[in-house]
Amino acid sequence: MSGVDILGYAAGAITTLTFLPQVLKTYKEKSAKDVSLNMFLIAAINEVMWIVYGALREDMVIILTNAVVLLMSLTMIFFKLKYGRKEIIKQKTT
Amino acid sequence: MSGVDILGYAAGAITTLTFLPQVLKTYKEKSAKDVSLNMFLIAAINEVMWIVYGALREDMVIILTNAVVLLMSLTMIFFKLKYGRKEIIKQKTT
Repeated sequence: MSGVDILGYAAGAITTLTFLPQVLKTYKEKSAKDVSLNMFLIAAINEVMWIVYGALREDMVIILTNAVVLLMSLTMIFFKLKYGRKEIIKQKTT
Repeated sequence: MSGVDILGYAAGAITTLTFLPQVLKTYKEKSAKDVSLNMFLIAAINEVMWIVYGALREDMVIILTNAVVLLMSLTMIFFKLKYGRKEIIKQKTT
């Protein structure tokens, strides 16, 4: 495996973890008002496209890495719907 | 170009635009309290890795797509630092 290959795998591994800090922050703070729902909707649809692409190419790396990002995107969509609503109720009652 | 190729290019094009809704939302609302700075710091470092990888592979598609995402990540880092600070001042004065 060349240095270029290693760089590619390292970059791919980090890409997989990009959404993790947002998931952890939102889980801790229970607030997602400023987070874009559309960003994670686009990401989720996009990950499904990548997973289908990986399946057609029979490329397990593409399937697995995108499955991780899909899981995080779906988690963020869930958080956004849950804590977005809370935010509205809070604003109405104060 | 096969159907699989077209799916791959379409998925890649959408990936490039993933951060755009967040950039537009934050620009409009001038608030980024709930947005994770770490997410965009990781994304920016990761994009630089992909651009170097693309340059070493002499792959213009990888270079260009990741340059677009890097630009959006740097914009979000700028917004987060700008509107994060505003948020703290607002909380202190109210």
